[in-house]
Amino acid sequence: MPSPDRIWTAALVVIGDEILSGRTHDKNIAQVAGWLQVQGIRLMEVRVVPDIEVRIVQAVNALRTTHDYLFTTGGIGPTHDDISVDAVAAALGVPVVVHPEARRILEDYYATRGGVSEARLRMARTPEGADLIPNRMSGAPGIKIGNVHMLAGVPHIAAQMLDALTGTLEGGAPLLSETVGGFIKESEVADILREVEQAHPNCQIGSYPFFREGQVGANFVIRSTDANDLRSCVDSLCEALAEAGFDFTPGGI
Amino acid sequence: MPSPDRIWTAALVVIGDEILSGRTHDKNIAQVAGWLQVQGIRLMEVRVVPDIEVRIVQAVNALRTTHDYLFTTGGIGPTHDDISVDAVAAALGVPVVVHPEARRILEDYYATRGGVSEARLRMARTPEGADLIPNRMSGAPGIKIGNVHMLAGVPHIAAQMLDALTGTLEGGAPLLSETVGGFIKESEVADILREVEQAHPNCQIGSYPFFREGQVGANFVIRSTDANDLRSCVDSLCEALAEAGFDFTPGGI
Repeated sequence: MPSPDRIWTAALVVIGDEILSGRTHDKNIAQVAGWLQVQGIRLMEVRVVPDIEVRIVQAVNALRTTHDYLFTTGGIGPTHDDISVDAVAAALGVPVVVHPEARRILEDYYATRGGVSEARLRMARTPEGADLIPNRMSGAPGIKIGNVHMLAGVPHIAAQMLDALTGTLEGGAPLLSETVGGFIKESEVADILREVEQAHPNCQIGSYPFFREGQVGANFVIRSTDANDLRSCVDSLCEALAEAGFDFTPGGI
Repeated sequence: MPSPDRIWTAALVVIGDEILSGRTHDKNIAQVAGWLQVQGIRLMEVRVVPDIEVRIVQAVNALRTTHDYLFTTGGIGPTHDDISVDAVAAALGVPVVVHPEARRILEDYYATRGGVSEARLRMARTPEGADLIPNRMSGAPGIKIGNVHMLAGVPHIAAQMLDALTGTLEGGAPLLSETVGGFIKESEVADILREVEQAHPNCQIGSYPFFREGQVGANFVIRSTDANDLRSCVDSLCEALAEAGFDFTPGGI
């Protein structure tokens, strides 16, 4: 149920040496961010931390206490470098237990796939008191404990878990946005952007320059929780750009 | 000059609402991470923060004091939402000044491109005491003050600035890595990975599962600062996988 008068916030901890080494390009930040927008929850901070327990504990504790929701991605698989469950349990001050329902899910899933080994049973471990987040793709569930939601690192599987969570978290009015863009140097419209934003206190305008096909340009993203205010701000911006003689494309380029 | 006995560390602050809204997929984390690897500097943490000064200040101060180097990306352009210079100056407790050399660079660059406007002059502002990081692509320089290195948010321009910094930062022995991969369920080789890692104390093995063409698989990344130790660990892993009957590809898949 949306509570429009309150802003709901979230943070994300991305756990994994592979992101910090540059080997893997993270896809979960954008995925979690976009999903949260639709739930009416604002992603306020992301931290990417290595597979070192004390670092994960620090990040989890700094962020779970300052946001409505905390998400983590990565480190919940079957191998020795998957230490997120231990780290979150340590952060919360609870022991790690084998979750009976997770064990049953894994036993079912692996019944026709070679059986449950000790390594696979690692994926049934949760901090004590946790609920499970279903994962139709690979059996091993995500974990929800308090306001902490632990998702897989593999983007396809994380997406399944987000899907399972859709509609279960209380949020506020979604932040709406519209984009106007063009092959416009942002330095030439800086005054227009500032003035239009100042005239619409319930809206923010972000300017995102790019360099494409040998030309510079920018997209201007107008954001608001109120659809009417958003419309009015977009209209004012388009009028001001047209008056100053700029070519632009509603919807962005 | 590499100092092999000391580990040099860095952190990165990605500044930008566009990443946190999910609108833009960040490319700078992987880019900065890969570049740092080659410099022999380990990226230990990334924080993505919104365009809110106090949030940037907090992240900058938490990370610049705990790592050898801090990098920032984003928020150094000409528009009202570019507040990174003000935030870093506030974090360092120094005023913002117009940097004479940056002003000259911008005047030269814009001499044939419509002249320097007030908005464009915003890009000559730096925290007092800063040096510039050249940027051949768009004129506006990056900023280096103390151990803080401020790069553009546009990935092409950030790449130019990293290029200009290549070889100027003291680092240690680069972390070397090799990958072995296959359509192998990581849960089936968890014991092998753990045992091989334990037998090679100077190496770490990371396991990175994927789901591709309807099949699950994993890449195993072996990391070490010592080329001989790395070789020996890779050989042990390949022998153990072969002995257990797994198909794998050196170099990863």
